[in-house]
Amino acid sequence: MAPPSEFSGHTVKSFDDDIAQLRAVITRMGGLCETQISDAVDALVNRNVEAARAIVERDVRLDALEAEAEALAVRIIALRAPMADDLREIVAALKIAGVMERIGDYAKNIAKRASVVAQAQPIGPAVIIPEMARVVIEIIHDTLDAFVDRDAAKANAILTRDQQVDEFYNSLFRSLLTFMMENPHYITPSTHLLFVAKNLERIGDHATSVAEMVHYSVTGQRPAERPKSDLTSNIYSPE
Amino acid sequence: MAPPSEFSGHTVKSFDDDIAQLRAVITRMGGLCETQISDAVDALVNRNVEAARAIVERDVRLDALEAEAEALAVRIIALRAPMADDLREIVAALKIAGVMERIGDYAKNIAKRASVVAQAQPIGPAVIIPEMARVVIEIIHDTLDAFVDRDAAKANAILTRDQQVDEFYNSLFRSLLTFMMENPHYITPSTHLLFVAKNLERIGDHATSVAEMVHYSVTGQRPAERPKSDLTSNIYSPE
Repeated sequence: MAPPSEFSGHTVKSFDDDIAQLRAVITRMGGLCETQISDAVDALVNRNVEAARAIVERDVRLDALEAEAEALAVRIIALRAPMADDLREIVAALKIAGVMERIGDYAKNIAKRASVVAQAQPIGPAVIIPEMARVVIEIIHDTLDAFVDRDAAKANAILTRDQQVDEFYNSLFRSLLTFMMENPHYITPSTHLLFVAKNLERIGDHATSVAEMVHYSVTGQRPAERPKSDLTSNIYSPE
Repeated sequence: MAPPSEFSGHTVKSFDDDIAQLRAVITRMGGLCETQISDAVDALVNRNVEAARAIVERDVRLDALEAEAEALAVRIIALRAPMADDLREIVAALKIAGVMERIGDYAKNIAKRASVVAQAQPIGPAVIIPEMARVVIEIIHDTLDAFVDRDAAKANAILTRDQQVDEFYNSLFRSLLTFMMENPHYITPSTHLLFVAKNLERIGDHATSVAEMVHYSVTGQRPAERPKSDLTSNIYSPE
């Protein structure tokens, strides 16, 4: 008869394998989100309608990965009946997969708008978009590192970085409004860029909420309230 | 010694109590979302800055209810180790609570913009907003009815109703762009109304995704792909 210690060691190992598999799906979702955002912004800047279409089509992969993460999480819960920390991590993974799928939707929307903007007159403020995207992608990347490493301190350090994204957004909002007022021909492309910027701002916000989930999953404590600096809904005039 | 049947009857009853409690939290979230949206749109139309501020403050209740739903779901999973249908319902409840919290965020954003719009010139296209909100609120209401009744057919019937919201949005997008082109003074209020309309469109989309979750939770099958009719990211000119 096999000694119980070995048997329980086997059980523990299987559970770790399951969790590792779930983490891998989430990491793949994060990597795909980063690519989708980066490619969507490239398509926007380079006015590449073909590339934009490919990004829109690629979004189904994120939907499939979310379904895979959910099926895995449910199987782990059902088979392993995990407790406390383990259960909290699985619930966090489930929620993070949902957020990643949403982030993918925002990237898809940027790609859709890239096709429209490609047909309009190029406008100056668009140059801020790739900078803003770069910050957002870094936040997603570091958040998923914190998730995989179960590193609460790293997750916590991310929480304030969303402010930079909000600052980009506020600045872009103002300059796009000024642009629209200058010339009615700028209104349509500016409106789409406004939505692109808003999509990036939402992605930053979602990624930051993932960092909060990671913090909670690791420590069992919710992080302190983070500052919110999308000021545009409080601004009447754009100057 | 108590007969086993009575004991197992007691266990089953407790589990049902737990689920009922979880359902009640979700229903309260849904009711609060409906109120928040309706009040935010009233504040917008009546240019009531005081009411708008109260709505923004009330959003913390939805955050608290989401945390309560999550704690309850985790406790049920840990204590009861539910299987198959029961587990699927709890996972659905967890996800639905997350979506309701997001819907609350959109309502809060509408309220914030109501304060800004109140300071600007009233513009005509705003009259469509309450109609759009009414449809969105109905979708949330019926979706939560389907959730509580575990009624897959009812959930399925909701999936196409989001198209009406998208049609409102497309129509509003076009008329707001036309407005902005007519007079630069309309640009700021029009931009905020565009975001309000987009918020309502997103709420409709989120509520519909809840109907999909209900369908999946009851049947174990994902519903057929639903049509998407926010056409504005595919439209270059607003006419």
